[in-house]
Amino acid sequence: MTSLRLIKAGGALIEDAGALSAFLDGFAAMPGMKVLVHGGGRSATALADRMGVPVKMVEGRRVTDQAMLEIVTMVYGGLVNKKIVAALQSRGVNALGLTGADLGLILADRRPAGKVDFGFVGDVRKVDISILVGLLERGVVPVIAPLSHDGNGNMLNTNADTVAAEVAKALAGCFDVTLEYRFEKEGVLNADGSFVPFIDPASFETMKASGAVSGGMIPKIQNALDAIRAGVSGVSIGKTKIY
Amino acid sequence: MTSLRLIKAGGALIEDAGALSAFLDGFAAMPGMKVLVHGGGRSATALADRMGVPVKMVEGRRVTDQAMLEIVTMVYGGLVNKKIVAALQSRGVNALGLTGADLGLILADRRPAGKVDFGFVGDVRKVDISILVGLLERGVVPVIAPLSHDGNGNMLNTNADTVAAEVAKALAGCFDVTLEYRFEKEGVLNADGSFVPFIDPASFETMKASGAVSGGMIPKIQNALDAIRAGVSGVSIGKTKIY
Repeated sequence: MTSLRLIKAGGALIEDAGALSAFLDGFAAMPGMKVLVHGGGRSATALADRMGVPVKMVEGRRVTDQAMLEIVTMVYGGLVNKKIVAALQSRGVNALGLTGADLGLILADRRPAGKVDFGFVGDVRKVDISILVGLLERGVVPVIAPLSHDGNGNMLNTNADTVAAEVAKALAGCFDVTLEYRFEKEGVLNADGSFVPFIDPASFETMKASGAVSGGMIPKIQNALDAIRAGVSGVSIGKTKIY
Repeated sequence: MTSLRLIKAGGALIEDAGALSAFLDGFAAMPGMKVLVHGGGRSATALADRMGVPVKMVEGRRVTDQAMLEIVTMVYGGLVNKKIVAALQSRGVNALGLTGADLGLILADRRPAGKVDFGFVGDVRKVDISILVGLLERGVVPVIAPLSHDGNGNMLNTNADTVAAEVAKALAGCFDVTLEYRFEKEGVLNADGSFVPFIDPASFETMKASGAVSGGMIPKIQNALDAIRAGVSGVSIGKTKIY
């Protein structure tokens, strides 16, 4: 099968102009099929602050009311996505910006309110790559914002790490997919700051039990392990290899 | 040649929720190949007001400084575009939101500062439909925001009527294209409010000389006449036919 690299870029890598430019230079130079999934949370928070919309985070995840949904749709789907698309076009990459609504790419269910009501947040139900595959074969490079739709006309906010894993899993039926989570750190770090060179399901359980990993890193590693189990050939978080 | 209808929707038709829903019902029900180009100026002005960014219009056209460029990129490329895409998906239409940067669709030159410096405003240089044609043939419905790119990594603000005419002209090489400008009015109206059933180049000159048409309607009619001359089969502005 043809190889495909799916890169998820987040944090300062996307939000700092110099870091983004250097990252996109490297991404543009990568040969072969590739897909980029981006975040943009800091820009969304900055716009919310500017508009006087309160920002509420629970366990590292954003609570998305109607006002916040409009903000993330504007920032992820508009500002950040088009900045990256235009920058890639200037580097000779035929980029196509997408949200989960475009081409019906990512259908999601609004998460039921439990202990926390996260609002307009979507849990992925189905990824439809039928049109995407033909575009990839024509050299188009999808640039995917962390937004899905519910099939009833509503956009939903969906975690970018999850979007990357779900799209990687769907593409693994057609291509030999590697999934790479990139951010400003070296990789997964223990609580004492030391680098973790690899993680498998057993060591992940140990790390969770000891508190060596916490916060947003836990679902990121879980997404990575799920992707491996679903047929993605290789997954890395920074320089940490996932088995 | 296969028929294709390109609809440009603007004004209250896009910005009023009820009018938009009714318009999209009708658009979704249209058989055959179709493309939608949308505006969104009122929403951009509303966000600018909310953010305290001054809005400056000259001869009905928006002056686009860096802050306003970010606003129109968010509003046209994000908020309005994705609202329409999600709504069409819920109506069974496989919509794909695009700006001029996506797929390298609309390359533009930043307009040189003359008597007025319009800022980050693009005059269309080239429309590249090479990928778009294959998508249309697979039943995808492009939804195009009035933004272009300069090939150097910058988005540019471009008049939606012009985007519609330029995309229609490019598609006229492959399809039998009709271009329809839709908005809240019946069509082109004389200064006394009476409806103008048709316009040709000669009557347009007479109307301009007498002051029967003015403001933003003049470039809209000019775009329509240019499209006819460039091979678009039929053009209408509301119910006014252009020859």
